[in-house]
Amino acid sequence: MTDHRVVIVGAGFGGLFAAKELRAAGVSVTLINGTTYHLFEPLLYQVATGILSEGEVAPPIREIFRHRRDLDVRLGWVTDVDVAGKAVLVAAPDGRERRVPYDSLVVAAGARNSYFGAEEFAEHAPSLKNIDDALELRGRIFHAFEMAELEEDPEARRRWLTYVLIGAGPTGVELAGQIAELARRALKGQYRHADLGETRVVLLDAADRVLPAFDAPLSVKALRHLTRMGVDVRLNTRVVDVDASGVKVDAAGGGERIEAHTKIWAAGVAAPALAGRIAEATGAGTDRAGRIVVEPDLTVPGHPEIFVVGDMAAQGLPGVAQVAMQGGRYAARMIKRRLAGRPPKKPFRYFDKGNMATIGRFAAVANVGKLHFSGLLGWLMWLSVHLFYLIGFKNKVTTLLHWVVSFLGRGRAERVGPAHGRRGG
Amino acid sequence: MTDHRVVIVGAGFGGLFAAKELRAAGVSVTLINGTTYHLFEPLLYQVATGILSEGEVAPPIREIFRHRRDLDVRLGWVTDVDVAGKAVLVAAPDGRERRVPYDSLVVAAGARNSYFGAEEFAEHAPSLKNIDDALELRGRIFHAFEMAELEEDPEARRRWLTYVLIGAGPTGVELAGQIAELARRALKGQYRHADLGETRVVLLDAADRVLPAFDAPLSVKALRHLTRMGVDVRLNTRVVDVDASGVKVDAAGGGERIEAHTKIWAAGVAAPALAGRIAEATGAGTDRAGRIVVEPDLTVPGHPEIFVVGDMAAQGLPGVAQVAMQGGRYAARMIKRRLAGRPPKKPFRYFDKGNMATIGRFAAVANVGKLHFSGLLGWLMWLSVHLFYLIGFKNKVTTLLHWVVSFLGRGRAERVGPAHGRRGG
Repeated sequence: MTDHRVVIVGAGFGGLFAAKELRAAGVSVTLINGTTYHLFEPLLYQVATGILSEGEVAPPIREIFRHRRDLDVRLGWVTDVDVAGKAVLVAAPDGRERRVPYDSLVVAAGARNSYFGAEEFAEHAPSLKNIDDALELRGRIFHAFEMAELEEDPEARRRWLTYVLIGAGPTGVELAGQIAELARRALKGQYRHADLGETRVVLLDAADRVLPAFDAPLSVKALRHLTRMGVDVRLNTRVVDVDASGVKVDAAGGGERIEAHTKIWAAGVAAPALAGRIAEATGAGTDRAGRIVVEPDLTVPGHPEIFVVGDMAAQGLPGVAQVAMQGGRYAARMIKRRLAGRPPKKPFRYFDKGNMATIGRFAAVANVGKLHFSGLLGWLMWLSVHLFYLIGFKNKVTTLLHWVVSFLGRGRAERVGPAHGRRGG
Repeated sequence: MTDHRVVIVGAGFGGLFAAKELRAAGVSVTLINGTTYHLFEPLLYQVATGILSEGEVAPPIREIFRHRRDLDVRLGWVTDVDVAGKAVLVAAPDGRERRVPYDSLVVAAGARNSYFGAEEFAEHAPSLKNIDDALELRGRIFHAFEMAELEEDPEARRRWLTYVLIGAGPTGVELAGQIAELARRALKGQYRHADLGETRVVLLDAADRVLPAFDAPLSVKALRHLTRMGVDVRLNTRVVDVDASGVKVDAAGGGERIEAHTKIWAAGVAAPALAGRIAEATGAGTDRAGRIVVEPDLTVPGHPEIFVVGDMAAQGLPGVAQVAMQGGRYAARMIKRRLAGRPPKKPFRYFDKGNMATIGRFAAVANVGKLHFSGLLGWLMWLSVHLFYLIGFKNKVTTLLHWVVSFLGRGRAERVGPAHGRRGG
């Protein structure tokens, strides 16, 4: 064991894979994260729609690394990096700030949601980026059906039964599909007063197609499937206002006001504040989303000891799990090579294993190289890949079970969330 | 179908079993509950300690009764009963109050926690009565280990590693056992700075034995097992003060102050406010805990159309699921008999199927008639009975799986909760 200290900021896909790759590397690793769990973000929408429990997508970091005596998990948020002194500043939940020194630093703090300056939309149209968001959305989605059941006025009832998703990337598409499934299938027959057939799911995007990161033919297929499921897809449409009871779209989208109690923001992400701090301290550039412009080997210009991987790096790559995983693993390998005195590895090259999104049960689209898959085949690929990458054997088993319940059956096992307006007992 | 309307207040064990018994009875049933789910309270402590997800102990009421066209589920809280007008007043989450008329009424609103007048203890020593409580406690229990890991000062660290349970009934005993298991087994090897061997679990009760509702020899066995697990059991000890950093016990208990960040109140329950409203409106008596004194047939004196079952009725019976289940079923049968013009059933008689509590893995005590079971045999009985009564096939399967993970393995699959002091991202 050398006394080389590697600090990893963030236990998302980038940080997790860097930490795994450093096993038995003879370095001491400190993994710093703001929560005690790794978050399997691609399945977060299933927590929000009652399919999975939060534990299934959020395995405790300490449990993942319980056998790694070389690894120290620290709960806290990195607020700044002292580049000259080679240390990160960590704010802990006890209110104190501590310095953690490093020899090599891997920054993988991911992205946060962005309202593109319209932060006032957040209250009425929450977004889906962490477990708290997912439980909040779960509460809102199911609560709206309950409110529709209580409501006697037809117009007010329709407002409760209208769901607006802003942004037609994977999160928006997957949520739209799931909410449509809830109304058409999972909750069918459970209400006596509201007619869930009246449920309207509206999916808006300023772009001219859904899933713009996919090849165009797959966008067409996804759109067709969404439409068949009853989702009202509005492209070339921008939201100009969001309030408690609806949204207003721009003139290009028809200028209409859509009355809806439940609005979800799935339109964009930006780099966290830490990216700006690092850019400032190192003189590195940032792109429009605030991501750090890195060298071809993912290091910060002039600072070969600092790697930035995943969503925080401006690399012209999509913000998906694979980019972060491969980046984290690459950074760890670079560190090991340097310590071994071997020549540096080639520049980081992303190997695109493909891109996939589910639309409804038995339907997904997948882009693998030049190959396109859709329908049941795409869905089976989606299912296997996500099960494969889910962390921990027990999570794989219970997740598979919950999928059987939800897709073969029509139950939603995890419907408990903060119901809005719930009081007393 | 007659036009007889049965209103059931509460979807706990009493209300659920009354509703089930009224299947195909030719009456219309309205089941009113403050949440959308039935709560399987006996396993709530496992949600609080990371074994089960909230969905596993809280199946949606609408899903349980999806095929019952004669049954209407209403979300809301019954605030009062108009005895003369035969209607209940329901406050709904939309802020409106509605009248729901009945011909027969089954009141099964359960119990709430009681601090016996010391309500100021609630902030520092929350109790465990519903899902929100369980998630709050889950957050506090796991967060304390994290804080101990961060803390450099040995005294402050010990305070984080000390858990005080107030009340040695089943909830207190089961929580004490589970927290001891977490420190000794489940979380072992996951922390690098805190020594979880320093964890102290203190279980206090004013009575002279643990599990006072069980036969005395079982209390002795339970005490022995708890002590072997390292739980510090203090009997004949009353808590006189609770604050942010500890508790103080009375002179009989030694007058000592115990420094502890995590305190849990498991000491007592009382009838909800609705019991008082009904007593007032009907002239019925109440006992010290505010429960309604009922006739031998569980009706309110002078009101044969109003039944009170489960924890809300003063019947000299323990506040356990079986009493509520049997009471609910009895009330439903009485209603059916009357409608059929048959002679009234005999007075309600509780058939005591037994009483059981787990202490740790592979260890439980069970009291069945005059028979006593403990250790592994008691635990297997506990396991089968709870699985049998859990609602829904899918909950049985995933619960069994989580038990395999937690008891054969040592994982805790559901550790996500509101971490106190968690901020930012």
